Amino acid sequence: LYNDKVMEHFMNPHNVGQIEDADGIGTYGSPVCGDMMQMSIKVDENDKITDAKFKTFGCGSAIASSSMATDMIIGMSVEEALELSNKKIIEELGGLPAVKIHCSVLAEHAIKAAIYDYAQKH
Amino acid sequence: LYNDKVMEHFMNPHNVGQIEDADGIGTYGSPVCGDMMQMSIKVDENDKITDAKFKTFGCGSAIASSSMATDMIIGMSVEEALELSNKKIIEELGGLPAVKIHCSVLAEHAIKAAIYDYAQKH
Ligand code: FES
Repeated sequence: LYNDKVMEHFMNPHNVGQIEDADGIGTYGSPVCGDMMQMSIKVDENDKITDAKFKTFGCGSAIASSSMATDMIIGMSVEEALELSNKKIIEELGGLPAVKIHCSVLAEHAIKAAIYDYAQKH
Repeated sequence: LYNDKVMEHFMNPHNVGQIEDADGIGTYGSPVCGDMMQMSIKVDENDKITDAKFKTFGCGSAIASSSMATDMIIGMSVEEALELSNKKIIEELGGLPAVKIHCSVLAEHAIKAAIYDYAQKH
């Protein structure tokens, strides 16, 4: 069902938790499965994301997608991160089963929500 | 969204893993979300369940439901365990959001699959 890369990120997810002094925090709930994700980001004076952490009650695919997505956005500018689609996250993971595509949407939308929160504060 | 009992079982799930010398092993996949659960049970000579463990890639609600369900069936006869419905699991958890009811069905069906596997072998 899941490839090795997805299993690896599920078993040992990166960037789990919450940044204490976050510059932006966003939450998104999936209309498909009801699962929630919270994303917190740290942004420097050049609008570059220097840290990202997620918390979720969602499934293994949501965990793997968010682990990969946070790895991807750390080092990006907020503009670049806003363009990160769940399609790109899935590509980087080497694919997800069709029925689990919606889980990767959690990561994409939670990142956008965190960036909007950051933008509103700055 | 989730009550304290659900959160407690999610954060510190009981009976996670796989029984090495299991008497019955069952797997069930949810048609709703695509998540899978494997249940293994140990049964004594009096048809009493002495151990149960689960493995899942599913969400927090699936984990909490299975943690509670395995606690409930350990000490039951296989006949009693066959009658454990997801409704009873949810009651014992103090409730689940409507959109997450299908996650508790994973536990019920995986237990039934493990018991059928045991029955076929005996
Ligand atoms: S099924 Fe809800 S996040 Fe995967």
